[in-house]
Amino acid sequence: MAVLAWDQNTYMPPGGHEPRAEQLATLEKLAHARLVDPRLARMLEALEPWAAGEDPDSDDSRLVRWTRRDHEKAARVPEALAVAMAGEAARGYTAWLEARECGEFSRFRDPLARQVELRREYAACFSDAAHPYDVLLDDFEPGMTLAELRPLFDALVPALAPIVEAAAAAEVPDVLSGDFPQEAQAALLTSVLTAVGFEPGTWRLDASPHPFAVSPGPGDVRLTTRYRDDDLGYSLYSGLHEFGHGLYDANLGAPLQRTPLHHCASLGVHESQSRLWENVIGRGRPFSAWLLHRLREHLPGTYDGMDHATLYRGLNGVRRTLVRTEADETTYNLHVALRLELELALIEDRLQVDDLPAAWGDGMQRLLGVEVSSDAEGVLQDVHWAAGHFGYFPTYTLGNLMAAQLWEQVCEDLDDVDAQIERGDFAPLRGWLREHIHRHGRKYTQRELLRRATRQELGVQPYLAYLQAKLADAGVLAG
Amino acid sequence: MAVLAWDQNTYMPPGGHEPRAEQLATLEKLAHARLVDPRLARMLEALEPWAAGEDPDSDDSRLVRWTRRDHEKAARVPEALAVAMAGEAARGYTAWLEARECGEFSRFRDPLARQVELRREYAACFSDAAHPYDVLLDDFEPGMTLAELRPLFDALVPALAPIVEAAAAAEVPDVLSGDFPQEAQAALLTSVLTAVGFEPGTWRLDASPHPFAVSPGPGDVRLTTRYRDDDLGYSLYSGLHEFGHGLYDANLGAPLQRTPLHHCASLGVHESQSRLWENVIGRGRPFSAWLLHRLREHLPGTYDGMDHATLYRGLNGVRRTLVRTEADETTYNLHVALRLELELALIEDRLQVDDLPAAWGDGMQRLLGVEVSSDAEGVLQDVHWAAGHFGYFPTYTLGNLMAAQLWEQVCEDLDDVDAQIERGDFAPLRGWLREHIHRHGRKYTQRELLRRATRQELGVQPYLAYLQAKLADAGVLAG
Repeated sequence: MAVLAWDQNTYMPPGGHEPRAEQLATLEKLAHARLVDPRLARMLEALEPWAAGEDPDSDDSRLVRWTRRDHEKAARVPEALAVAMAGEAARGYTAWLEARECGEFSRFRDPLARQVELRREYAACFSDAAHPYDVLLDDFEPGMTLAELRPLFDALVPALAPIVEAAAAAEVPDVLSGDFPQEAQAALLTSVLTAVGFEPGTWRLDASPHPFAVSPGPGDVRLTTRYRDDDLGYSLYSGLHEFGHGLYDANLGAPLQRTPLHHCASLGVHESQSRLWENVIGRGRPFSAWLLHRLREHLPGTYDGMDHATLYRGLNGVRRTLVRTEADETTYNLHVALRLELELALIEDRLQVDDLPAAWGDGMQRLLGVEVSSDAEGVLQDVHWAAGHFGYFPTYTLGNLMAAQLWEQVCEDLDDVDAQIERGDFAPLRGWLREHIHRHGRKYTQRELLRRATRQELGVQPYLAYLQAKLADAGVLAG
Repeated sequence: MAVLAWDQNTYMPPGGHEPRAEQLATLEKLAHARLVDPRLARMLEALEPWAAGEDPDSDDSRLVRWTRRDHEKAARVPEALAVAMAGEAARGYTAWLEARECGEFSRFRDPLARQVELRREYAACFSDAAHPYDVLLDDFEPGMTLAELRPLFDALVPALAPIVEAAAAAEVPDVLSGDFPQEAQAALLTSVLTAVGFEPGTWRLDASPHPFAVSPGPGDVRLTTRYRDDDLGYSLYSGLHEFGHGLYDANLGAPLQRTPLHHCASLGVHESQSRLWENVIGRGRPFSAWLLHRLREHLPGTYDGMDHATLYRGLNGVRRTLVRTEADETTYNLHVALRLELELALIEDRLQVDDLPAAWGDGMQRLLGVEVSSDAEGVLQDVHWAAGHFGYFPTYTLGNLMAAQLWEQVCEDLDDVDAQIERGDFAPLRGWLREHIHRHGRKYTQRELLRRATRQELGVQPYLAYLQAKLADAGVLAG
């Protein structure tokens, strides 16, 4: 399915779309049938006595435990509902594309209402859940509940307000705009990705309408990016972002291959890796010093006169904007907070789909102080809800929080990490991430991983401290 | 599997080879399990009474009949043998690669002996077959037997000898050698393929070490070719060859989609389509006139001074050479005849693997009058036996014979076909092929297809008549 998806988004002729959708649906159906197969239930049952005597943290114990969780979760859902969710996801996606194209929310209203209804039905299959949202969240962030999530956002949002207020007022130079031929951007990005690092012959970079990373198998990582002639930052930072995802996939532990554990721990953990490379490392002081040399080498003339302080400051501007995917790392979480607030209200039936565009506008005004002038740049900007992905958005912020905590620990464990990065030696950093995060795959939950790596629980303070320190260091905030 | 194979041969990073082999093996295993599933047997049995009352030529009747044939053939083979054949095919391929690399047959001896042994075991599962070779041939050319095949070669080989003798003595200009940048070759080939024809947006052309065609689904055809800077003919004629394969796949009947009938009738029929476009059309008088304009347009300077008669003659030279894949359309069949002779002797246990290189050399001397100086250019040149594909080679010649017979019928049915081709109008020809061959998929056998299209049985006379007429017309043979 990874190869089919990669191919679909890179090289497939347009004529292949319809059969490709059928091929993916067929594979999905076969995989689902295996997951709910009663023979799997019997196998799991037969393993119970063995599991009782086994180290609960061994690979095998965890394999049994996760397989049981996947099986039980899938088996709780009636086949008719599972099929409806899959079918409506495809239909919702098509309706969303059309609605966004012409900027009319009315075209998306019915398919979205259907998605909300289906997800409420889905959540209701798990009557033992404390909150229906827990069921949805658990699909993307296994083990996380609304009771844990809500306090994080309740602490984060008010604390971000004064930072955004102060930082958005600062004058920040525009350091990545200009006129950059695609070949030069691709050469720069390839050189950066080669330096930060995969093994040669185990990855490739292509162009696609939406950047993504996928790994069809060990030793084979595919990154994509998109090129905008007037904006070097787009290809460079989406490339670093996808590199973080790809590096995680590339380093999943070899002993876990061809098992359900050879998989990310959660979307939040995946996002912690992409955000770490894109923002914490990629917009940090030492990396920007290293990057300046690469920019001068690949784009001769453009960066000869720019000093490091200017580049570093320019990479860290904070702006109140309308579109999540183009938001800076500070305001990004406010975009996520809005989506969490709204999807929670939809699932709890406190908000009706008809009132969603207005609620979106109110929220953007309240959280970011910006006016939404069109649904295309408002409620229609994201694909997630169209495919029924409620509970997905918060994982972006979980990734941001986790990245900051991991970075604190990296700095403690690797004394010399700043100097290493500045001279382009990323191997110790990659080694740390592989050891503490990547190799474990899905063996541990996000919470377990973070505890093992940092001896801490997930919280907002490290992230806020990181943000303030960097914005001050870069000269965006008064020190 | 088509997408996995295409990806593996075009864009996959080298690191992906090992997991890709496992992925393909997994899919093969799943497909095989479905084919031999007793539930399928029960379903086929339950359909018997219905099938008895149905038109035996309806799509549904044929679907049941071919599914039963596939199921019964697979079910006759013990699983252990099926698994061994699949596993040894991969091992045989690796051994062959290594042996060819260093030119040492001794490295290939044991794996090849194992392939012969496995195929003899496989054939023995079908005790009702008149000859073990019939079982092997039937995998590639369903319904064809050695009793039908042998007389064709017995008539063809002696008739080709005097043609080769006379034609190889003729002076033929070298019209496709030179120094051609890859970009210019690719642009020429794209323009030629666009003209001969797929619908826009339903195909693509890439480079790969070995040219091939594959269609991952309706509306999605992938052709590949290989570029040699000093030989325009390689990319151009392998491109036309793969186009013939791709056009067949693209035109398989829509009502047959997602059934086992949405598949070629046989490898011989597939090859008839590729050979038709590569040789009968592509090296014919009207096409070469049309091609000359394309050559002048895409390679300005090089072809300005060449006249049509010279190009046409140059495209049809006959040469005694060592390598099958580079042989002209006349001598090609002698390379096939040698392989048929040898594989038959191996399967009948009249020839031992140790004696194969010597037998190869003798055969090349006898059939083509050339000296084999190395195993790399001799017995190690082809991959087929390494993967256990005994019974495959004859389908190349069956394709040549069938292409000539189809062409006779095309000329009868489409009065104006030569003029159409000369002016670049390939639509009537494509329409004829779609109507009489492509759309039927695997509904009819090769024999049935040929009878329906031409009211004739397969024979060698039309092919010999076609060859002699063209070689005379092109000035290679005295008229």
